[in-house]
Amino acid sequence: MARPDTVVNLADKLAQIAEHWSPRTVGQLNDLHIKVVKLQGEFVWHQHDDTDEFFLVLSGKMTIQLADREDVTLGAGEFFIVPKGVQHRPVAAHECEVVLLEPAGTVNTGDAESSELTADPAWL
Amino acid sequence: MARPDTVVNLADKLAQIAEHWSPRTVGQLNDLHIKVVKLQGEFVWHQHDDTDEFFLVLSGKMTIQLADREDVTLGAGEFFIVPKGVQHRPVAAHECEVVLLEPAGTVNTGDAESSELTADPAWL
Repeated sequence: MARPDTVVNLADKLAQIAEHWSPRTVGQLNDLHIKVVKLQGEFVWHQHDDTDEFFLVLSGKMTIQLADREDVTLGAGEFFIVPKGVQHRPVAAHECEVVLLEPAGTVNTGDAESSELTADPAWL
Repeated sequence: MARPDTVVNLADKLAQIAEHWSPRTVGQLNDLHIKVVKLQGEFVWHQHDDTDEFFLVLSGKMTIQLADREDVTLGAGEFFIVPKGVQHRPVAAHECEVVLLEPAGTVNTGDAESSELTADPAWL
């Protein structure tokens, strides 16, 4: 499914996701993918050399650890944009629901070696 | 202010906006602007020839009237992407708070003649 010409309910999409760290694509704006993901635990340190990355928390709380600067913590209704080229690691003590914005084709683990956390952000 | 390297709280930004139909820019992801806007009443019919436009409702309810297809109605937590080149008119019976995503430089009234509704989406 691509570019659905329908209203998308974010909570309904998230309710269909069981795994953590497995983003799913729910919309496309020009070349940008709108994704939803459930986070819990610690991701890998990585960076995206060619793109900024947008995180908006819908429920729960997450921290984005950033190389060479203070961590940022996001609660519901808060967003942060990691600039391209900045090493970062998302972590969440408890389950956290997030909207991601990044160009189509962006790999979730960025420049980090492919791992079990590398996910295919299939359409949902 | 541009590209703030800070956490952005959407409710805090919206609380600073008094006018309807006056989008303000609160973030930038690559060439894309993240905006917040309060809607109430009826906008003008218009289209954006070069870009899709993303509407996410945070509170309230809005309808996007679309040329040649059924209107869509969005409640909190729901989004819709108007494809480029599609005539549309946002309307809201009561105040509705919305996140918009569109490329930097996008004019809110699109191809419609400049009017009192044409707004400068200044940074907030």
